[in-house]
Amino acid sequence: MIRMNKKGRLFVVSAPSGAGKTTLCEKLVRTDTDIMRSVSMTTRLIRPGEKNGRDYFFISAEEFKKKIKNDEFLEYAKVFGNYYGTPREYVEESLNKNKDVLLAIDVQGAMKIRKKMRKRCTLVFILAPDIQELKRRLLKRQTESKTQIMMRLEVARHELSYLKYYDYKIINDNIKTAFKKLQAIVVAARCEIN
Amino acid sequence: MIRMNKKGRLFVVSAPSGAGKTTLCEKLVRTDTDIMRSVSMTTRLIRPGEKNGRDYFFISAEEFKKKIKNDEFLEYAKVFGNYYGTPREYVEESLNKNKDVLLAIDVQGAMKIRKKMRKRCTLVFILAPDIQELKRRLLKRQTESKTQIMMRLEVARHELSYLKYYDYKIINDNIKTAFKKLQAIVVAARCEIN
Repeated sequence: MIRMNKKGRLFVVSAPSGAGKTTLCEKLVRTDTDIMRSVSMTTRLIRPGEKNGRDYFFISAEEFKKKIKNDEFLEYAKVFGNYYGTPREYVEESLNKNKDVLLAIDVQGAMKIRKKMRKRCTLVFILAPDIQELKRRLLKRQTESKTQIMMRLEVARHELSYLKYYDYKIINDNIKTAFKKLQAIVVAARCEIN
Repeated sequence: MIRMNKKGRLFVVSAPSGAGKTTLCEKLVRTDTDIMRSVSMTTRLIRPGEKNGRDYFFISAEEFKKKIKNDEFLEYAKVFGNYYGTPREYVEESLNKNKDVLLAIDVQGAMKIRKKMRKRCTLVFILAPDIQELKRRLLKRQTESKTQIMMRLEVARHELSYLKYYDYKIINDNIKTAFKKLQAIVVAARCEIN
Protein backbone atom coordinates (compact mmCIF):
# COMPACT_ATOMS: atom_id res chain seq x y z
CA MET A 1 0.00 0.00 0.00
CA ILE A 2 1.11 3.52 -0.72
CA ARG A 3 0.17 5.79 2.14
CA MET A 4 -0.84 8.99 0.48
CA ASN A 5 -3.67 11.45 0.06
CA LYS A 6 -3.55 11.06 -3.72
CA LYS A 7 -2.10 14.43 -4.50
CA GLY A 8 0.98 14.02 -6.67
CA ARG A 9 1.32 11.55 -9.52
CA LEU A 10 3.79 8.75 -9.97
CA PHE A 11 5.71 8.38 -13.23
CA VAL A 12 7.51 5.10 -13.72
CA VAL A 13 10.15 4.89 -16.43
CA SER A 14 11.69 1.58 -17.42
CA ALA A 15 14.19 0.81 -20.13
CA PRO A 16 16.89 -1.69 -20.95
CA SER A 17 20.39 -0.48 -20.05
CA GLY A 18 21.65 1.71 -22.84
CA ALA A 19 18.26 2.98 -24.01
CA GLY A 20 18.95 6.42 -22.56
CA LYS A 21 16.74 6.29 -19.49
CA THR A 22 19.10 8.13 -17.14
CA THR A 23 19.72 11.05 -19.52
CA LEU A 24 16.01 11.50 -20.20
CA CYS A 25 15.02 11.28 -16.53
CA GLU A 26 17.68 13.75 -15.39
CA LYS A 27 16.66 16.21 -18.07
CA LEU A 28 13.04 15.93 -17.01
CA VAL A 29 13.59 16.70 -13.32
CA ARG A 30 15.96 19.52 -14.27
CA THR A 31 13.40 21.26 -16.50
CA ASP A 32 10.23 20.51 -14.52
CA THR A 33 10.22 21.67 -10.92
CA ASP A 34 6.97 19.85 -10.11
CA ILE A 35 8.51 16.43 -10.49
CA MET A 36 11.05 14.89 -8.10
CA ARG A 37 13.26 11.93 -8.91
CA SER A 38 13.28 9.16 -6.37
CA VAL A 39 16.80 7.75 -6.01
CA SER A 40 16.73 3.97 -5.67
CA MET A 41 18.87 1.93 -3.30
CA THR A 42 21.00 -0.89 -4.58
CA THR A 43 23.49 -3.46 -3.37
CA ARG A 44 25.33 -3.58 -6.71
CA LEU A 45 28.80 -2.13 -7.14
CA ILE A 46 29.15 1.52 -8.06
CA ARG A 47 30.19 2.01 -11.72
CA PRO A 48 32.83 4.49 -12.88
CA GLY A 49 31.20 7.91 -13.18
CA GLU A 50 28.35 7.10 -10.81
CA LYS A 51 27.78 9.07 -7.65
CA ASN A 52 26.33 7.80 -4.40
CA GLY A 53 23.03 9.59 -3.67
CA ARG A 54 22.63 10.78 -7.25
CA ASP A 55 22.59 7.60 -9.35
CA TYR A 56 21.73 5.29 -6.47
CA PHE A 57 22.20 4.98 -2.77
CA PHE A 58 24.78 2.21 -2.65
CA ILE A 59 24.30 0.10 0.46
CA SER A 60 25.31 -3.35 1.66
CA ALA A 61 23.16 -6.46 1.29
CA GLU A 62 22.88 -6.60 5.05
CA GLU A 63 21.51 -3.04 5.26
CA PHE A 64 19.16 -3.74 2.37
CA LYS A 65 17.69 -6.81 4.02
CA LYS A 66 17.16 -4.88 7.24
CA LYS A 67 15.20 -2.24 5.33
CA ILE A 68 13.08 -4.92 3.67
CA LYS A 69 12.20 -6.23 7.15
CA ASN A 70 11.28 -2.71 8.32
CA ASP A 71 8.95 -2.21 5.29
CA GLU A 72 11.06 0.71 4.15
CA PHE A 73 10.65 -0.08 0.43
CA LEU A 74 7.72 0.72 -1.80
CA GLU A 75 8.99 -2.07 -4.01
CA TYR A 76 12.22 -3.97 -4.35
CA ALA A 77 13.55 -6.62 -6.68
CA LYS A 78 16.60 -8.77 -7.25
CA VAL A 79 18.10 -8.19 -10.70
CA PHE A 80 21.39 -9.74 -11.88
CA GLY A 81 21.92 -11.02 -8.32
CA ASN A 82 21.72 -7.52 -6.84
CA TYR A 83 18.95 -5.87 -4.90
CA TYR A 84 17.27 -2.67 -6.10
CA GLY A 85 14.59 -0.88 -4.11
CA THR A 86 12.52 2.31 -3.97
CA PRO A 87 12.63 4.01 -0.55
CA ARG A 88 9.05 4.45 0.61
CA GLU A 89 9.36 7.58 2.74
CA TYR A 90 10.70 9.96 0.08
CA VAL A 91 8.02 8.98 -2.45
CA GLU A 92 5.12 9.24 -0.02
CA GLU A 93 6.28 12.57 1.36
CA SER A 94 6.72 14.06 -2.12
CA LEU A 95 3.31 12.88 -3.34
CA ASN A 96 1.64 14.27 -0.22
CA LYS A 97 3.36 17.60 -0.85
CA ASN A 98 1.59 17.66 -4.23
CA LYS A 99 4.81 16.88 -6.10
CA ASP A 100 4.96 14.31 -8.86
CA VAL A 101 7.54 11.58 -8.46
CA LEU A 102 9.68 9.96 -11.13
CA LEU A 103 10.83 6.39 -10.57
CA ALA A 104 13.38 4.94 -12.96
CA ILE A 105 12.98 1.27 -12.18
CA ASP A 106 12.99 -2.11 -13.90
CA VAL A 107 9.95 -4.03 -15.14
CA GLN A 108 9.58 -6.09 -11.95
CA GLY A 109 9.41 -2.93 -9.86
CA ALA A 110 7.09 -1.24 -12.33
CA MET A 111 4.64 -4.12 -12.20
CA LYS A 112 4.58 -3.94 -8.39
CA ILE A 113 3.90 -0.18 -8.47
CA ARG A 114 1.10 -0.64 -10.99
CA LYS A 115 -0.52 -3.21 -8.71
CA LYS A 116 -0.36 -0.85 -5.73
CA MET A 117 -1.53 2.21 -7.59
CA ARG A 118 -3.81 1.85 -10.56
CA LYS A 119 -4.66 5.51 -10.88
CA ARG A 120 -2.45 8.59 -10.79
CA CYS A 121 0.35 6.36 -12.00
CA THR A 122 1.82 6.48 -15.51
CA LEU A 123 4.15 3.79 -16.87
CA VAL A 124 6.56 4.68 -19.66
CA PHE A 125 8.86 2.25 -21.48
CA ILE A 126 11.87 3.64 -23.30
CA LEU A 127 13.30 1.61 -26.14
CA ALA A 128 16.49 1.75 -28.11
CA PRO A 129 15.75 1.81 -31.86
CA ASP A 130 16.71 -1.89 -32.02
CA ILE A 131 18.69 -4.56 -30.20
CA GLN A 132 21.81 -4.03 -32.37
CA GLU A 133 21.89 -0.34 -31.51
CA LEU A 134 21.48 -1.25 -27.84
CA LYS A 135 24.48 -3.61 -28.07
CA ARG A 136 26.54 -0.89 -29.74
CA ARG A 137 25.70 1.59 -26.97
CA LEU A 138 26.52 -0.86 -24.19
CA LEU A 139 29.87 -1.74 -25.78
CA LYS A 140 30.66 1.94 -26.22
CA ARG A 141 29.95 2.58 -22.53
CA GLN A 142 32.79 0.17 -21.64
CA THR A 143 31.66 -0.17 -18.03
CA GLU A 144 30.89 -3.86 -18.20
CA SER A 145 32.38 -7.09 -19.51
CA LYS A 146 31.15 -8.73 -22.72
CA THR A 147 29.47 -11.49 -20.71
CA GLN A 148 27.60 -8.91 -18.66
CA ILE A 149 26.55 -7.11 -21.82
CA MET A 150 25.25 -10.33 -23.40
CA MET A 151 23.31 -10.97 -20.19
CA ARG A 152 21.85 -7.45 -20.30
CA LEU A 153 20.76 -7.95 -23.92
CA GLU A 154 19.07 -11.22 -22.97
CA VAL A 155 17.29 -9.42 -20.15
CA ALA A 156 16.32 -6.59 -22.53
CA ARG A 157 14.61 -9.16 -24.77
CA HIS A 158 12.78 -10.62 -21.80
CA GLU A 159 11.74 -7.20 -20.47
CA LEU A 160 10.20 -6.32 -23.81
CA SER A 161 7.50 -8.89 -23.10
CA TYR A 162 6.26 -6.55 -20.36
CA LEU A 163 5.76 -3.67 -22.79
CA LYS A 164 2.05 -4.39 -23.06
CA TYR A 165 1.51 -3.55 -19.38
CA TYR A 166 2.88 -0.04 -19.85
CA ASP A 167 0.89 3.04 -20.82
CA TYR A 168 3.37 4.61 -23.21
CA LYS A 169 6.42 3.71 -25.23
CA ILE A 170 9.11 6.05 -26.48
CA ILE A 171 11.60 4.88 -29.09
CA ASN A 172 14.78 6.77 -28.33
CA ASP A 173 16.33 7.17 -31.77
CA ASN A 174 16.85 10.88 -31.18
CA ILE A 175 17.34 12.22 -27.67
CA LYS A 176 15.64 15.57 -28.39
CA THR A 177 12.50 14.04 -29.87
CA ALA A 178 12.42 11.36 -27.18
CA PHE A 179 12.62 14.01 -24.48
CA LYS A 180 9.80 16.02 -26.02
CA LYS A 181 7.67 12.89 -25.94
CA LEU A 182 8.47 12.24 -22.30
CA GLN A 183 7.61 15.84 -21.43
CA ALA A 184 4.34 15.58 -23.36
CA ILE A 185 3.41 12.40 -21.49
CA VAL A 186 3.93 14.18 -18.16
CA VAL A 187 1.91 17.25 -19.21
CA ALA A 188 -0.88 15.08 -20.61
CA ALA A 189 -1.02 12.88 -17.51
CA ARG A 190 -1.62 15.98 -15.41
CA CYS A 191 -4.69 16.74 -17.56
CA GLU A 192 -6.10 13.24 -17.10
CA ILE A 193 -9.61 12.90 -15.75
CA ASN A 194 -9.89 10.28 -13.04
CA MET B 1 -18.94 1.12 -37.09
CA ILE B 2 -15.94 3.00 -38.35
CA ARG B 3 -14.54 1.33 -41.43
CA MET B 4 -10.82 1.67 -41.03
CA ASN B 5 -7.59 -0.29 -40.78
CA LYS B 6 -6.78 1.32 -37.46
CA LYS B 7 -3.98 3.52 -38.68
CA GLY B 8 -4.61 7.11 -37.67
CA ARG B 9 -6.03 8.24 -34.35
CA LEU B 10 -9.16 10.16 -33.58
CA PHE B 11 -9.06 13.19 -31.30
CA VAL B 12 -12.39 14.47 -30.09
CA VAL B 13 -12.54 17.93 -28.56
CA SER B 14 -15.65 19.18 -26.81
CA ALA B 15 -16.25 22.42 -24.99
CA PRO B 16 -19.06 24.76 -24.11
CA SER B 17 -19.38 27.70 -26.52
CA GLY B 18 -16.93 30.36 -25.49
CA ALA B 19 -14.34 28.04 -23.93
CA GLY B 20 -11.95 28.61 -26.83
CA LYS B 21 -12.39 25.32 -28.65
CA THR B 22 -12.23 26.76 -32.18
CA THR B 23 -9.07 28.78 -31.60
CA LEU B 24 -7.27 25.82 -30.01
CA CYS B 25 -8.32 23.37 -32.71
CA GLU B 26 -7.35 25.66 -35.56
CA LYS B 27 -3.96 26.27 -34.01
CA LEU B 28 -3.42 22.55 -33.63
CA VAL B 29 -4.09 21.62 -37.25
CA ARG B 30 -2.01 24.59 -38.41
CA THR B 31 1.06 23.52 -36.44
CA ASP B 32 0.76 19.75 -36.75
CA THR B 33 0.66 18.40 -40.30
CA ASP B 34 -0.23 14.88 -39.17
CA ILE B 35 -3.65 15.85 -37.91
CA MET B 36 -6.58 16.87 -40.10
CA ARG B 37 -9.65 18.69 -38.91
CA SER B 38 -12.96 17.19 -39.88
CA VAL B 39 -15.45 19.93 -40.72
CA SER B 40 -18.90 19.12 -39.40
CA MET B 41 -22.15 19.69 -41.22
CA THR B 42 -24.95 21.67 -39.64
CA THR B 43 -28.40 22.97 -40.37
CA ARG B 44 -28.00 25.98 -38.07
CA LEU B 45 -27.67 29.51 -39.45
CA ILE B 46 -24.22 30.81 -40.30
CA ARG B 47 -22.92 33.35 -37.75
CA PRO B 48 -21.15 36.60 -38.65
CA GLY B 49 -17.49 35.81 -39.31
CA GLU B 50 -18.09 32.16 -40.06
CA LYS B 51 -17.20 30.64 -43.40
CA ASN B 52 -18.92 27.78 -45.16
CA GLY B 53 -16.51 24.83 -45.44
CA ARG B 54 -14.19 26.17 -42.79
CA ASP B 55 -16.32 26.47 -39.67
CA TYR B 56 -19.04 24.12 -40.86
CA PHE B 57 -20.65 22.95 -44.01
CA PHE B 58 -23.99 24.73 -43.78
CA ILE B 59 -26.71 22.65 -45.38
CA SER B 60 -30.50 22.48 -45.30
CA ALA B 61 -32.47 20.21 -42.97
CA GLU B 62 -33.70 18.36 -46.02
CA GLU B 63 -30.17 17.64 -47.26
CA PHE B 64 -29.13 16.64 -43.74
CA LYS B 65 -31.93 14.13 -43.38
CA LYS B 66 -31.09 12.62 -46.76
CA LYS B 67 -27.50 12.10 -45.60
CA ILE B 68 -28.70 10.45 -42.39
CA LYS B 69 -30.70 8.01 -44.51
CA ASN B 70 -27.65 7.26 -46.66
CA ASP B 71 -25.51 6.54 -43.57
CA GLU B 72 -23.18 9.39 -44.50
CA PHE B 73 -22.57 10.46 -40.89
CA LEU B 74 -20.22 8.90 -38.37
CA GLU B 75 -22.39 10.52 -35.74
CA TYR B 76 -25.01 13.23 -35.69
CA ALA B 77 -27.04 14.97 -33.03
CA LYS B 78 -29.72 17.59 -32.63
CA VAL B 79 -28.55 20.47 -30.45
CA PHE B 80 -30.59 23.65 -29.84
CA GLY B 81 -33.02 22.41 -32.47
CA ASN B 82 -30.35 22.19 -35.15
CA TYR B 83 -28.63 19.16 -36.62
CA TYR B 84 -24.86 18.68 -36.39
CA GLY B 85 -23.05 15.75 -37.97
CA THR B 86 -19.60 14.36 -38.76
CA PRO B 87 -19.23 13.29 -42.41
CA ARG B 88 -18.06 9.70 -42.41
CA GLU B 89 -16.06 9.60 -45.64
CA TYR B 90 -13.51 12.29 -44.81
CA VAL B 91 -12.73 10.80 -41.39
CA GLU B 92 -12.35 7.24 -42.62
CA GLU B 93 -10.21 8.23 -45.58
CA SER B 94 -7.89 10.33 -43.40
CA LEU B 95 -7.46 7.61 -40.78
CA ASN B 96 -6.70 5.05 -43.45
CA LYS B 97 -4.08 7.38 -44.89
CA ASN B 98 -2.38 7.25 -41.47
CA LYS B 99 -3.49 10.76 -40.59
CA ASP B 100 -4.94 11.65 -37.23
CA VAL B 101 -8.31 13.35 -37.27
CA LEU B 102 -9.58 16.10 -35.02
CA LEU B 103 -13.30 16.31 -34.36
CA ALA B 104 -14.63 19.36 -32.56
CA ILE B 105 -18.04 18.08 -31.54
CA ASP B 106 -20.49 18.25 -28.66
CA VAL B 107 -20.84 15.75 -25.82
CA GLN B 108 -23.58 13.75 -27.52
CA GLY B 109 -21.39 13.23 -30.57
CA ALA B 110 -18.35 12.47 -28.43
CA MET B 111 -20.19 9.74 -26.54
CA LYS B 112 -21.24 8.13 -29.83
CA ILE B 113 -17.67 8.18 -31.12
CA ARG B 114 -16.35 6.66 -27.88
CA LYS B 115 -18.86 3.84 -28.22
CA LYS B 116 -17.77 3.13 -31.79
CA MET B 117 -14.07 3.37 -31.13
CA ARG B 118 -12.73 2.54 -27.70
CA LYS B 119 -9.08 2.48 -28.72
CA ARG B 120 -7.08 4.94 -30.78
CA CYS B 121 -9.57 7.58 -29.75
CA THR B 122 -8.80 10.38 -27.30
CA LEU B 123 -11.48 12.58 -25.77
CA VAL B 124 -10.56 16.05 -24.57
CA PHE B 125 -12.85 18.46 -22.74
CA ILE B 126 -11.97 22.16 -22.75
CA LEU B 127 -13.32 24.28 -19.95
CA ALA B 128 -13.54 27.98 -19.37
CA PRO B 129 -12.06 28.89 -15.96
CA ASP B 130 -15.60 29.20 -14.58
CA ILE B 131 -19.19 29.77 -15.64
CA GLN B 132 -18.99 33.55 -15.01
CA GLU B 133 -16.03 33.86 -17.35
CA LEU B 134 -17.88 31.81 -19.94
CA LYS B 135 -20.84 34.20 -19.71
CA ARG B 136 -18.53 37.16 -20.12
CA ARG B 137 -16.95 35.67 -23.25
CA LEU B 138 -20.29 34.84 -24.82
CA LEU B 139 -21.60 38.36 -24.18
CA LYS B 140 -18.43 39.83 -25.63
CA ARG B 141 -18.83 37.74 -28.77
CA GLN B 142 -22.16 39.49 -29.43
CA THR B 143 -23.29 36.95 -31.99
CA GLU B 144 -26.30 35.76 -30.04
CA SER B 145 -29.21 37.12 -28.06
CA LYS B 146 -29.22 37.10 -24.25
CA THR B 147 -31.83 34.33 -24.24
CA GLN B 148 -29.62 32.21 -26.47
CA ILE B 149 -26.65 32.88 -24.20
CA MET B 150 -28.60 31.86 -21.09
CA MET B 151 -29.60 28.69 -22.91
CA ARG B 152 -25.96 27.99 -23.84
CA LEU B 153 -24.91 28.43 -20.20
CA GLU B 154 -27.60 26.01 -19.08
CA VAL B 155 -26.35 23.51 -21.65
CA ALA B 156 -22.76 24.10 -20.52
CA ARG B 157 -23.75 23.12 -16.98
CA HIS B 158 -25.45 20.00 -18.30
CA GLU B 159 -22.52 19.07 -20.54
CA LEU B 160 -20.15 19.24 -17.58
CA SER B 161 -21.82 16.12 -16.22
CA TYR B 162 -20.23 14.24 -19.13
CA LEU B 163 -16.73 15.28 -18.12
CA LYS B 164 -16.09 11.96 -16.39
CA TYR B 165 -16.38 10.08 -19.68
CA TYR B 166 -13.54 12.08 -21.23
CA ASP B 167 -9.84 11.20 -21.05
CA TYR B 168 -8.46 14.69 -20.50
CA LYS B 169 -9.59 18.12 -19.41
CA ILE B 170 -7.94 21.43 -20.19
CA ILE B 171 -8.92 24.54 -18.28
CA ASN B 172 -8.47 27.38 -20.74
CA ASP B 173 -7.49 30.26 -18.47
CA ASN B 174 -4.53 31.06 -20.72
CA ILE B 175 -4.63 30.25 -24.43
CA LYS B 176 -0.86 29.59 -24.66
CA THR B 177 -0.78 27.15 -21.75
CA ALA B 178 -4.01 25.52 -22.87
CA PHE B 179 -2.57 25.01 -26.36
CA LYS B 180 0.61 23.45 -24.98
CA LYS B 181 -1.54 21.01 -23.04
CA LEU B 182 -3.55 20.10 -26.13
CA GLN B 183 -0.35 19.55 -28.09
CA ALA B 184 1.07 17.40 -25.28
CA ILE B 185 -2.08 15.26 -25.23
CA VAL B 186 -1.73 14.63 -28.98
CA VAL B 187 1.99 13.76 -28.73
CA ALA B 188 1.38 11.50 -25.72
CA ALA B 189 -1.54 9.72 -27.37
CA ARG B 190 0.74 8.81 -30.27
CA CYS B 191 3.06 7.08 -27.77
CA GLU B 192 0.25 5.05 -26.24
CA ILE B 193 0.62 1.28 -26.12
CA ASN B 194 -2.48 -0.55 -27.24
